[in-house]
Amino acid sequence: PPSPLQPPGLPLAPCRSFSNNKIQVELDESSGVAVMKFKSPPVNSLSLEFLTEFSISLEKLENNRACRGVIITSALPKIFSSGLDITEMCGKSIEHYTEFWRAVQEMWLRLYGSNMVTVAAVNGSSPAGGCLIALSCDYRIMAENPKFSIGLNEAQLGIVAPFWFKDTFVNVVGHRIAERSLQLGSLHPAPEAHKLGLVDELVPEEKLMEKAAAVMAQWLALPDHARQLTKTMMRKVVLDRLVAHREEDIKNFISFVSKESIQKSLRMYMEMLKKKK
Amino acid sequence: PPSPLQPPGLPLAPCRSFSNNKIQVELDESSGVAVMKFKSPPVNSLSLEFLTEFSISLEKLENNRACRGVIITSALPKIFSSGLDITEMCGKSIEHYTEFWRAVQEMWLRLYGSNMVTVAAVNGSSPAGGCLIALSCDYRIMAENPKFSIGLNEAQLGIVAPFWFKDTFVNVVGHRIAERSLQLGSLHPAPEAHKLGLVDELVPEEKLMEKAAAVMAQWLALPDHARQLTKTMMRKVVLDRLVAHREEDIKNFISFVSKESIQKSLRMYMEMLKKKK
Amino acid sequence: PPSPLQPPGLPLAPCRSFSNNKIQVELDESSGVAVMKFKSPPVNSLSLEFLTEFSISLEKLENNRACRGVIITSALPKIFSSGLDITEMCGKSIEHYTEFWRAVQEMWLRLYGSNMVTVAAVNGSSPAGGCLIALSCDYRIMAENPKFSIGLNEAQLGIVAPFWFKDTFVNVVGHRIAERSLQLGSLHPAPEAHKLGLVDELVPEEKLMEKAAAVMAQWLALPDHARQLTKTMMRKVVLDRLVAHREEDIKNFISFVSKESIQKSLRMYMEMLKKKK
Repeated sequence: PPSPLQPPGLPLAPCRSFSNNKIQVELDESSGVAVMKFKSPPVNSLSLEFLTEFSISLEKLENNRACRGVIITSALPKIFSSGLDITEMCGKSIEHYTEFWRAVQEMWLRLYGSNMVTVAAVNGSSPAGGCLIALSCDYRIMAENPKFSIGLNEAQLGIVAPFWFKDTFVNVVGHRIAERSLQLGSLHPAPEAHKLGLVDELVPEEKLMEKAAAVMAQWLALPDHARQLTKTMMRKVVLDRLVAHREEDIKNFISFVSKESIQKSLRMYMEMLKKKK
Repeated sequence: PPSPLQPPGLPLAPCRSFSNNKIQVELDESSGVAVMKFKSPPVNSLSLEFLTEFSISLEKLENNRACRGVIITSALPKIFSSGLDITEMCGKSIEHYTEFWRAVQEMWLRLYGSNMVTVAAVNGSSPAGGCLIALSCDYRIMAENPKFSIGLNEAQLGIVAPFWFKDTFVNVVGHRIAERSLQLGSLHPAPEAHKLGLVDELVPEEKLMEKAAAVMAQWLALPDHARQLTKTMMRKVVLDRLVAHREEDIKNFISFVSKESIQKSLRMYMEMLKKKK
Repeated sequence: PPSPLQPPGLPLAPCRSFSNNKIQVELDESSGVAVMKFKSPPVNSLSLEFLTEFSISLEKLENNRACRGVIITSALPKIFSSGLDITEMCGKSIEHYTEFWRAVQEMWLRLYGSNMVTVAAVNGSSPAGGCLIALSCDYRIMAENPKFSIGLNEAQLGIVAPFWFKDTFVNVVGHRIAERSLQLGSLHPAPEAHKLGLVDELVPEEKLMEKAAAVMAQWLALPDHARQLTKTMMRKVVLDRLVAHREEDIKNFISFVSKESIQKSLRMYMEMLKKKK
């Protein structure tokens, strides 16, 4: 059985890893800790394929008794994840929108409701859906680089964060800060994000994984069962709200994304991104 | 169409204003920003007439497509608003109490639920109902003068803030601070109010309007529709609670204010205020 | 009638006191303030007998018109209260578990719902149920000694804090801090507890009772009726949740504590405590 007190990753034990197209996972069975790295250039955007791989990877780890915790980070420089892939929301069929949105929900339900200890090692910018992933972990460590920013900036694109993004955000930063940040679609530079409580800790980028492993060891020192029941008690209300309104939430997304005005502003945003390159 | 990026108030565009007895409103159509000034000496107390004018002014602006945001401030020195007018609660008929309380509710429902960006420029003390007005805005800037104080001090007069005052307060400062502040009926000097998160920013009094215009410009840089939907998502639960219990809340107020003990302490309080002059 | 403005405890007025086996109570009728001292060596653990005395003492004071506030502290050095007495949870009958858990609930319902002003003068460590007692007061002052710690550390023993411990905690420190602290079973040294908002104020140990009396005088300066209604408004939702689920909560406790794995870890914990001595 894995010892929670053993320094993670040190005396090298049998280690299983698997890699899909978009995400690479390495599980150190001696520590019980998996490291999940997003590797979908250029910006780890959350496409349908990415989200599907993400959910499957989480499910595999969740069902692996040798895995007790997962550190989520990016294999790309400067970016953690750019959030939902806008190409999935432009000029597609209703069926596609339905499948895509269900995959977004699925990812969040698995991550926010995970029985594993989840630590986000945010090693780059993390807007919108990228921020949601960080918010859904148990603990957030961010590289202290002020050029990296994080936030639910949906309002800047003329779109509205779904209620469960909002619920997750309020649970982390409280109502006043969430209200202002969501309305302004703020992207907070790392130091500001730390001040607001959006991330729990800042460390120099080169120390990020070391710190994440140390935090993970601290969380894994607790008996799993009590910790898991406690986590469920804290998050159940918000998880249940999406489960209860899942189909309605999909309908809302479809009706929103089908609007010509929204399609137009998403297309303009994509053009802008292309020109930036 | 108004440009949100244009510095507000500069190249002078057609500007509409209207003024009632108690409140003066100037709308700068080029920026889309209205300034609403309370001018009901001596202390901008919220009489039935004041509240009615306030609600009507908000409604006019809300329905004016040229108006996207409103800055609320006082035309009087040292006082933002002293809160509910106690003379409306003393020795009047049930019908009067009913009409008065409905006007208080109406004002809050309009302000807290406004689709406009609302910025409070708190340029003086702001107890009780005055504090509620500030709490109901999107952003609160206060003159840094420590002689100016703000808070829901109802308990000091032996009365209880209604549940929707409390809900609004908890949304801004969180449960612990609200619980203590409401029980003690605290009036927080500006620096303390800032520390508690009751106001978002302190500036020297002479910079207050300039700062409010700058903040407003920042908020107006966002597309209205997404910002409005986001605001609704954040505030709907609390707004709906009053809507659902409005008549009950009126009955509570009447039964409370009709008590001889309450009438007595309100009369004593008014005597004290008169002597102060 | 007691004057709230009189310095508490000074010109000695008629003073009633009563003492049971575990708790000593002194009521100063001139100030309206009772001091309740836990005196159950070695660590003021919350046995069935202790809890019963605590509830009865609170009830007596609550029904005594001369008493308006209570300061809760420990008569023992270095420890406020060690929390629930584990011997009550080991190798006992279902009937005993039922009676014990009902007593825990009863104590909390009386303390969190008290009409009196309640000030915790935390003069030593305060884990688990000891922390709950402090959290249930209106105000928490702690001796600034960093060797004293406080927190809901149930997860460390492999058990889960009940939902109403959690609700009380969230009301004090907010969701993010409660989530992390509960999952880690953290015991926060006094300075950290202060930083997190878990305690409101730190003072040198020798000034603790003086400060508690001063805070009490400040709270008693408010009219009782308005303050009590305000407190009820703030706490009712959380109190009602336990009242509505009381029997279910007892069943949960019994089914949990009856598990062989839990019995084993509680026995191990007790052995460890014995060896420490």
